[in-house]
Amino acid sequence: MKIERIFTVSSRKQLLSQLKKELLELAHLGTSIGVLEWDRQVNMPPGGSGARAETLAYLAGLWHKKFTSPEFFKLVNGLMAEVDAGTLNSQELCIVKETWRDLERRRKLPTEFIEKITKVTSEANDVWAVAKKASDFKKFQPYLEKIITLKRRQASLLGFKKSPYDALLDGYEPGMTSDEVSIIFKELRDFLVPFIGKIKNSKTSINPDILRGDFSIREQEKFIKSVAKKIGYDFNTGRLDISSHPFSTSFHPTDARITTRYREDDLFYSLGSVVHEAGHAMYEQGLLKEHFGTPLAESRSLGIHESQSRIWENLVGKSRSFWKYFYPHLQKEFPKPFTEVSFENFYRAINCVKPSLVRTEADEVTYNLHVILRFEIEKELIEGTLEVADLPKIWNSKIKEYFGLKVPNDRLGVLQDTHWSGGSFGYFPTYALGNLYSVQLYESAKRSISGLEEYKSRGNFKPFRDWLRKNIHIHGKLYSADELVKKATGEPLTPKYWMDYIKNKFSEIYSL
Amino acid sequence: MKIERIFTVSSRKQLLSQLKKELLELAHLGTSIGVLEWDRQVNMPPGGSGARAETLAYLAGLWHKKFTSPEFFKLVNGLMAEVDAGTLNSQELCIVKETWRDLERRRKLPTEFIEKITKVTSEANDVWAVAKKASDFKKFQPYLEKIITLKRRQASLLGFKKSPYDALLDGYEPGMTSDEVSIIFKELRDFLVPFIGKIKNSKTSINPDILRGDFSIREQEKFIKSVAKKIGYDFNTGRLDISSHPFSTSFHPTDARITTRYREDDLFYSLGSVVHEAGHAMYEQGLLKEHFGTPLAESRSLGIHESQSRIWENLVGKSRSFWKYFYPHLQKEFPKPFTEVSFENFYRAINCVKPSLVRTEADEVTYNLHVILRFEIEKELIEGTLEVADLPKIWNSKIKEYFGLKVPNDRLGVLQDTHWSGGSFGYFPTYALGNLYSVQLYESAKRSISGLEEYKSRGNFKPFRDWLRKNIHIHGKLYSADELVKKATGEPLTPKYWMDYIKNKFSEIYSL
Repeated sequence: MKIERIFTVSSRKQLLSQLKKELLELAHLGTSIGVLEWDRQVNMPPGGSGARAETLAYLAGLWHKKFTSPEFFKLVNGLMAEVDAGTLNSQELCIVKETWRDLERRRKLPTEFIEKITKVTSEANDVWAVAKKASDFKKFQPYLEKIITLKRRQASLLGFKKSPYDALLDGYEPGMTSDEVSIIFKELRDFLVPFIGKIKNSKTSINPDILRGDFSIREQEKFIKSVAKKIGYDFNTGRLDISSHPFSTSFHPTDARITTRYREDDLFYSLGSVVHEAGHAMYEQGLLKEHFGTPLAESRSLGIHESQSRIWENLVGKSRSFWKYFYPHLQKEFPKPFTEVSFENFYRAINCVKPSLVRTEADEVTYNLHVILRFEIEKELIEGTLEVADLPKIWNSKIKEYFGLKVPNDRLGVLQDTHWSGGSFGYFPTYALGNLYSVQLYESAKRSISGLEEYKSRGNFKPFRDWLRKNIHIHGKLYSADELVKKATGEPLTPKYWMDYIKNKFSEIYSL
Repeated sequence: MKIERIFTVSSRKQLLSQLKKELLELAHLGTSIGVLEWDRQVNMPPGGSGARAETLAYLAGLWHKKFTSPEFFKLVNGLMAEVDAGTLNSQELCIVKETWRDLERRRKLPTEFIEKITKVTSEANDVWAVAKKASDFKKFQPYLEKIITLKRRQASLLGFKKSPYDALLDGYEPGMTSDEVSIIFKELRDFLVPFIGKIKNSKTSINPDILRGDFSIREQEKFIKSVAKKIGYDFNTGRLDISSHPFSTSFHPTDARITTRYREDDLFYSLGSVVHEAGHAMYEQGLLKEHFGTPLAESRSLGIHESQSRIWENLVGKSRSFWKYFYPHLQKEFPKPFTEVSFENFYRAINCVKPSLVRTEADEVTYNLHVILRFEIEKELIEGTLEVADLPKIWNSKIKEYFGLKVPNDRLGVLQDTHWSGGSFGYFPTYALGNLYSVQLYESAKRSISGLEEYKSRGNFKPFRDWLRKNIHIHGKLYSADELVKKATGEPLTPKYWMDYIKNKFSEIYSL
């Protein structure tokens, strides 16, 4: 439904400014939810959780009511007529079209459907936790079946051209289709399975245990903060705290926070996650605050977001040049064990490849293969060509085929991730897409910034961060992910950069 | 304006449940504001302050809009007819009448007036900070004059019987009048001025510097937390953080937090404030969560709130029996200097009396006199019998008269407090009323709990906390402050307990 275009220039301006005002108010509610949620995970006294859940539900309800109000619909719908008439500039177009997109996706789902899926996934999440602990897929199976039915219904409500999976994927990676993902992932898989086999058979053996030590949490925090600061995470508009799972959250470009957790014997347990989360948060800090509230100051997609965390975590944080600068500092702060570990052995240890059963513990090489496996399975579940009951069997056989490993139980197998219990189908691919984007972007940055590795090895990360800021962060949702990548790298997303990078880096490390 | 009573029993129940629902929603907004404000003071990265102010303003606007909506007025007004008809039970009466009271007070102030006073006090607060730094009252004078004019207007808008000051006082200590305060304060002053003189002339000299030492902040925090926990502050529904000024804040009875700040040379700088704030927070933790959102789960008044902080800070935290239990622990944790300080010398040092120019640094004896001085002055300002221009002169002469001290400059004199710059006229008396309530309550508790001092000296604070919970906390706003005190102590507020307590305690300490 579109209404006739009847606006004069001045009434158009007025409508646009009204839209920005409404979006800003929605953003204030979003910020409030964000702060209360961050506080819940970082600070909240245990006894306060029940009350906090109720306040959060109230705020979420306020947001939803405002966003789906008839007045807001009328406003955005009216401006959509301007989009068709071609009277808006590119920024205005972005604001109106992206808002309309979100509104349409939400309006297609009836309230009773949202309530039902919220209830089912909430229950399923609890059951999943119990089932995982007991390593008993059968317990979880009926709940997952219900979720699949609901997600298929969600896909029909949202609409799709080819696969119902596309409708879900579009919620996380707008514009991407399962066909595109399938093509890319097939190429990756065909490269990875034999490549991982080669690494397994390599005579080079790497011992990651040389990184173990006794690291006081205080000293870890101090060192990690200095690294985060050095790479460009701005503590004037951010902070680092402790939570049970690391995450980053942004309330505004001037307040984007990160968390981690510590292990006394493993500095890299926290360091890796902090560089990762700082990458996410630097994206949020780089959004333009003058556009706060509008899609112009929102991250483009989950895949692009993940590219920003992975580019710092892997392309920077696991590179020779990065450690050329930081290793002497690390040795100084933690003489034990690092004064006794050569740079080369250190570099190999942090880049050790070891096919494993658990995605979240996977290294840079094998990680994508975990994602591919999940994508293949969840796509079939949503398309109805795979029964939930057959899930453990297919999971275990794929793990055998791709990694050459045997799954000893469901806890380390099909029950390991929380995503499906929460109804997040279509989310997994964005992890791998983020990896692909990250290398393609990094290679482009390397072509633009002459001496990038040299800068890094001298501890100057500014040219690189500025490149990301200029090419990715400041654009918000102005371009589609596809356009953004083309503008930043000169070509559409391709897995070739990632494969070349992995082949080169790890062939050298493993003397293949 | 009251509408006719036309409700049946079932529609009355429906209206009451609607009111509770609306109040709960307002409370969710209040909680959200509270968490964002706490976060602002405790955690927020400096760069985020501008954005946070905007989000807070938006939430405050939402609260105000909801509270002053015609629908809400109609609902409460309708239920007020039930109050008149006598159909409500005491809890329902409290909910309706207290809500009506708040609503009426707010509705009497036109929006343009609220906007104006918000703007003027915001500017005045900035100017006051500058003027205080420069110790230059003249800079602040024109702003204070504007504020006085507005506060007088506010008093006429709110309405009063005798003094315009009553209308303002009623906002902080409902039901109290300036006549009542004047009588009580005159009695106090007539006791205090000569009593302080006696202490000044006493031959007993106390050296508080024996308490100084080198206390690591970590160790301080550990000790202070153990004290707070021991006296009954529940860390399962609370936490202790650092902020530039100590405060307590409550989001819900299950989440009531406190803050402090530390000085490495002075353990009592933090300890005293934590016991004080824990007293406030225990009140909030003791409100009944099943009534959350309604006046039944709100603190009674500022004076009653202050009684809860002062009763722990002074009657407990500066008593012999308290330290009989804690002093050995203190000596163990901080052998230097405390192993070399005798119990008696320690007890005297923490109870040292020293007339001083600054209220916030005042001891238990002189504190009330600071408040009395302010009350006398602000009452005259509001009643129009004192010109703002004459303020420094009268301030300094009263300080001379009451404390025998000479005020060297406005910074240490009339400019020391922030209250007037923020328009908080009528607030000061609640500090002294809190002190009076605290002793009267304590003496009543002592009569009820046989062996109270003995319990304290064995580190058992439960009987006392439970007494406060039963007699004060759980009642919320069910009774007026006057009724509450009568129920808890058998008589209305009287300064005699406080004066007796001060006379006995300090006559002994100073051998008067």
